[in-house]
Amino acid sequence: MMDRSESLRTDARWIAAAKRDASSRFVVYAGTDVYLRDSLPIGPVGVTARALEELGANLDLALFLGRENGVAWFAIDVAAIAPSERSSIETLGRRVALGAIQDPVGEDAWALLAQARSLLAWNARYRHCPTCGAPMEMRSAGYVRACTNAECGALHFPRSDPAIIVRVTYEDRCLLARQPAYRPGLYSILAGFVEPGESLEDAVRREVAEEVGLCLAHVAYVGSQPWPFPTSLMVGFAAEAACAEIHVDGREIESAEWMTRSVVGTRSENGTLILPSAKSIARRLIDAWLLRAGSATDRHS
Amino acid sequence: MMDRSESLRTDARWIAAAKRDASSRFVVYAGTDVYLRDSLPIGPVGVTARALEELGANLDLALFLGRENGVAWFAIDVAAIAPSERSSIETLGRRVALGAIQDPVGEDAWALLAQARSLLAWNARYRHCPTCGAPMEMRSAGYVRACTNAECGALHFPRSDPAIIVRVTYEDRCLLARQPAYRPGLYSILAGFVEPGESLEDAVRREVAEEVGLCLAHVAYVGSQPWPFPTSLMVGFAAEAACAEIHVDGREIESAEWMTRSVVGTRSENGTLILPSAKSIARRLIDAWLLRAGSATDRHS
Repeated sequence: MMDRSESLRTDARWIAAAKRDASSRFVVYAGTDVYLRDSLPIGPVGVTARALEELGANLDLALFLGRENGVAWFAIDVAAIAPSERSSIETLGRRVALGAIQDPVGEDAWALLAQARSLLAWNARYRHCPTCGAPMEMRSAGYVRACTNAECGALHFPRSDPAIIVRVTYEDRCLLARQPAYRPGLYSILAGFVEPGESLEDAVRREVAEEVGLCLAHVAYVGSQPWPFPTSLMVGFAAEAACAEIHVDGREIESAEWMTRSVVGTRSENGTLILPSAKSIARRLIDAWLLRAGSATDRHS
Repeated sequence: MMDRSESLRTDARWIAAAKRDASSRFVVYAGTDVYLRDSLPIGPVGVTARALEELGANLDLALFLGRENGVAWFAIDVAAIAPSERSSIETLGRRVALGAIQDPVGEDAWALLAQARSLLAWNARYRHCPTCGAPMEMRSAGYVRACTNAECGALHFPRSDPAIIVRVTYEDRCLLARQPAYRPGLYSILAGFVEPGESLEDAVRREVAEEVGLCLAHVAYVGSQPWPFPTSLMVGFAAEAACAEIHVDGREIESAEWMTRSVVGTRSENGTLILPSAKSIARRLIDAWLLRAGSATDRHS
């Protein structure tokens, strides 16, 4: 696992030297696409400073991710470089939309891809001071943005948007639902952003009530996962409904259905049901339920 | 519990009418101070629109919190009104710094105070579009801020900063630590913000390693609490250390000590140890451990 080496972020001389060091490696994005190595397990291509400088990439804009086995890792976005110029990176791996990855991704590789993507996205979107409107500049190797207006001088820190995702079951059935934007056949469990002033558990109960009109008898934490689309933190829960009658809101959720394990199995096999990608905590929550046949009253996954 | 009535936020006519309705109530802040009712249990004074208009408060800037038993609740900040002019509110209750409350606060009252404070703080701090620098305007009764530059038009949503707080125990002792900014005698458990690309559990392990150099054998979720200073979401964990040897970082933490229950009891009684305020999840985690005498190997609070 990456050592984030927080104390080095403010050591500008160390950071500048490490960016040019031959042993250092860069996670390279082009907007929402990332360069992945061709071989398994799934992970980013570790591109060298030299390869990036040959492309004309500005290493000053690279963000520090941490160190692993003595190697410093950075993140950089090359979207500003013409795709034809990027062909030398393309030979190192394949360019893939991060969100389109369907296979499982190991926790450490996912953490690295997510850290890079969410830090890049935040730095790209937070260019002006929200307090006074003046331009901001990057500090601490990408973990602080500082207002350049001396009268304001506000410091801003990376954003992580907490969201809940919840597997709702009733007896031997699990609630699977569709959002209007989903591709045909895709069903998942319910999710939504935590609002100001809410606990995670309040957010679970509110989202389930809003989207499908259900009250919950029991809510249990299962685990969490960074979800860099662009800067979310997904917190997973397993809940039991107090009753089975659903009222779909028709806006955030267009349809929802209680499915038994055998219905999920049959429809998945004949292609009429697509579950969320194997990299997601949504899928992990669904799979944990699928594998627990015969233990409908078990409360924990 | 407040029904946040999300669907009403975009109904500008309903919101405008509710703000002037005689039955509606306002949670009133003046910066980081809030007006609390004099009687127990602790809760905000529910100020009327009429009382606020008599002060010259601009109700257009009030934010919608939700409805409870048919009463619409809003949040407003009166810091721009001279304190002498505010005396009519002072007769309704007492003005208190939210952070200075030491007593326990019920979950629903805390949720209301936190929702109001964090929404007000976010709207006050995010006045310009972080993407292009143009002024933003309030939408959706305070839950959206929209860029007024037609070429940009970015929408921005309230910020909630996830942070972890963790009670670390080893055999029959709990680790209590001091930050340099704490008042004399105050000790608490360890806490820190979740970084981009981290799960909650990753953040727990990183913060504990950074601040006191400990590895953890076991990490378990306990619960969560909105922490509006100004916009945090505190997620609480209980962890067992893999060993007892600590190395205080001397920066975020100035000292840390393993304390038995009897040491905590004795020092609290003689005034040499002050625990975090009763409203905090920090205190809830510590109290749960204090009350569990004799079950040193129990992993859950």
